[in-house]
Amino acid sequence: MDSVEKKFLKLGAENAPGQEGRQNNDEIKLSGNKIPGKKVDFSHGDVDAFEPIPGSLDHFIEGVQIGGKQAYTEYRGSEEIREMTAEKLADFTSSKINPEKNLIITPGTQGALFLAMGSTISRNDKVAIVAPDYFANRKLVEFFEGEVVYISMDYLHSNSGAGLDLGQLEEAFKAGVKLFLFSNPNNPAGVIYSPDEIRKIAELAQSYGVQVVVDQLYSRQIFDGINYTHLAAQNILDSENLVTIMGPSKTESLSGYRLGVAFGSSKIINRMEKLQAIVSLRAGGYNQAVLKSWFHEPEGWMAQRIAQHQAIRDDLVTKLRYIKGVKVRSTEAGSYLFPRVPELTVSMEEFVKILRIQANVIVTPGTEFGPEFTSSFRMNFSQDHSAAVEAIDRIEKVVEEYRK
Amino acid sequence: MDSVEKKFLKLGAENAPGQEGRQNNDEIKLSGNKIPGKKVDFSHGDVDAFEPIPGSLDHFIEGVQIGGKQAYTEYRGSEEIREMTAEKLADFTSSKINPEKNLIITPGTQGALFLAMGSTISRNDKVAIVAPDYFANRKLVEFFEGEVVYISMDYLHSNSGAGLDLGQLEEAFKAGVKLFLFSNPNNPAGVIYSPDEIRKIAELAQSYGVQVVVDQLYSRQIFDGINYTHLAAQNILDSENLVTIMGPSKTESLSGYRLGVAFGSSKIINRMEKLQAIVSLRAGGYNQAVLKSWFHEPEGWMAQRIAQHQAIRDDLVTKLRYIKGVKVRSTEAGSYLFPRVPELTVSMEEFVKILRIQANVIVTPGTEFGPEFTSSFRMNFSQDHSAAVEAIDRIEKVVEEYRK
Repeated sequence: MDSVEKKFLKLGAENAPGQEGRQNNDEIKLSGNKIPGKKVDFSHGDVDAFEPIPGSLDHFIEGVQIGGKQAYTEYRGSEEIREMTAEKLADFTSSKINPEKNLIITPGTQGALFLAMGSTISRNDKVAIVAPDYFANRKLVEFFEGEVVYISMDYLHSNSGAGLDLGQLEEAFKAGVKLFLFSNPNNPAGVIYSPDEIRKIAELAQSYGVQVVVDQLYSRQIFDGINYTHLAAQNILDSENLVTIMGPSKTESLSGYRLGVAFGSSKIINRMEKLQAIVSLRAGGYNQAVLKSWFHEPEGWMAQRIAQHQAIRDDLVTKLRYIKGVKVRSTEAGSYLFPRVPELTVSMEEFVKILRIQANVIVTPGTEFGPEFTSSFRMNFSQDHSAAVEAIDRIEKVVEEYRK
Repeated sequence: MDSVEKKFLKLGAENAPGQEGRQNNDEIKLSGNKIPGKKVDFSHGDVDAFEPIPGSLDHFIEGVQIGGKQAYTEYRGSEEIREMTAEKLADFTSSKINPEKNLIITPGTQGALFLAMGSTISRNDKVAIVAPDYFANRKLVEFFEGEVVYISMDYLHSNSGAGLDLGQLEEAFKAGVKLFLFSNPNNPAGVIYSPDEIRKIAELAQSYGVQVVVDQLYSRQIFDGINYTHLAAQNILDSENLVTIMGPSKTESLSGYRLGVAFGSSKIINRMEKLQAIVSLRAGGYNQAVLKSWFHEPEGWMAQRIAQHQAIRDDLVTKLRYIKGVKVRSTEAGSYLFPRVPELTVSMEEFVKILRIQANVIVTPGTEFGPEFTSSFRMNFSQDHSAAVEAIDRIEKVVEEYRK
């Protein structure tokens, strides 16, 4: 087997959100009848239930009307929009961002993650990844032929913060980890790192010379007024060793425009631009104009959106906890829940397929987020409220049908 | 120096189109006065002079109105749009394209190139690249740590076809080249491979088991009714070893939407989708809807566009040839000219900077397209006709000023 083939064997995408249609379901045997109900696709947010920021399409149209200047921006993005975005993000994260040096506009936060990883690691580099964390993190390390070092996060039992095992993190750093990549709020567990955790991460990275990429995609959607800590605001870690990633794809429902932003280290951002030049040139030129609506939502719009999500969360958590043997930590930020189910007669991968075929409910298997999460699945609850609640009843029925 | 740093030293982007603003011009000394005139940026086409396909924005807006289904397509692109596009491309290239297996929608043709290269080569693989050819080709091979094997193309002296050195190509294949990547029409020389050249490339690739990626970005813009040969239509090379790349960014002026398509080998397309899943998820969902306008232009629109470009080409070639010592082959297809200038007192990189600062004319240095092209530069003549013609007068003045 050649080395490209080997690399791609590890790069499965069939369990990724939206890819379910490409799965092979030949071997699934259902027990019991189909459970009728309105389809709910918890694999990603429903932008029909929660629509894009009002006015975002108008910004796009204005971008088209600007013409060539907007179509052919610098690879790191339009100067005007970088300036505007840097100011908003500097304010939000209490950090300094020079729009000329410290910020790049990317095709989605996925694009930012790819460019950041491609700009910092290469073959045999050790990369610390939290378990559980966003599934692409691991795949990115594998694509660049690095070595994943998992750091445990006891999110189910922690009372303050995410529950990251800081001792393990220090051991990993001591053993030569080059880069630490993590999401805050955590995807899939929906938890926020405490101020102490963030400070300690920064101190360890600084003392061992480790680069850090922090994915803050969901950091605007905080529930119950919990305290959120921006790593970039700490001034502990050398700012040239830190990249922060954000974007308007989730809470703001602009995923269809493929927009993301990375900011921080000028050295890494510079490399990211060089890489972007051969990956996709730039984030869609006209699309970039849509960033004008970001952090510029109508008065009260964001507060309402957060409240609506918090209400869905409350109903789903209550109903999930009612299912015997299900354990779930309530989401502190973002739109994810990561429930753990009791022992079943089928594997998690089978359970997820059964749920889709038998109950019209799509979730993402926990194993995508770390090899040990064989009893968990992820749900994005940015959905039609009542449809989501009803889907939990169907999940319960499937759990009962296949309970060991 | 660590291995990431080494890799990025080779990945310069400051001479790439649109990146001129990031160049360091401290050491440029001008001889003579500024030469006034309307700025012409020949580094890429001017989409204000040649506007996007009529109705393309309407398709985008319809895409937004479709909502979630259009925002979250499969990573390889919307099923409906893949079907539509496969049919149009199968017709255009006289090849078979199963929309389910043989086609992926990408963020621009640059995205298609990146995914195709990342899906076929890895460290130490030999990759044959034509000299001259599109500058990202070489950079892609270097990023994936492959080894570039240059194949000469004597475009200036060939009478039939592009002038590819087929003997050299066979030697390279014999020596273990894994992949052959080339553009047809050639970027930057604007020449078309003859039916004989294409047949021979296919035969050699088939007999040595070499994979081929052919970039046909400009294959709709053919001048003087010259015969264009689609490699995919030859049925000589195993179709699982061939990927063809096209897109609507150039002749159709849709670059601001970042859309491209790769079609051919199901194995490679499958890998490209897995890679897309970690690179940028998908081409912008709403953007994909704009492909509906592609190959569906208003009656006569494409013929007129080609005629307009042919007229600009004629004027520029005549004027360029009038400059003593300048050699240029007339464009057969696409919007590029690749003139060679006489000996100058400055290097080509300096000449290009001088041209921009002194004469308000932007071109791309020949060394981007192959190390030996130290006396050539590339011009994209998809520009305002009279501004382009006037810019040649200024180029002439700068040549005279710095002639050895």
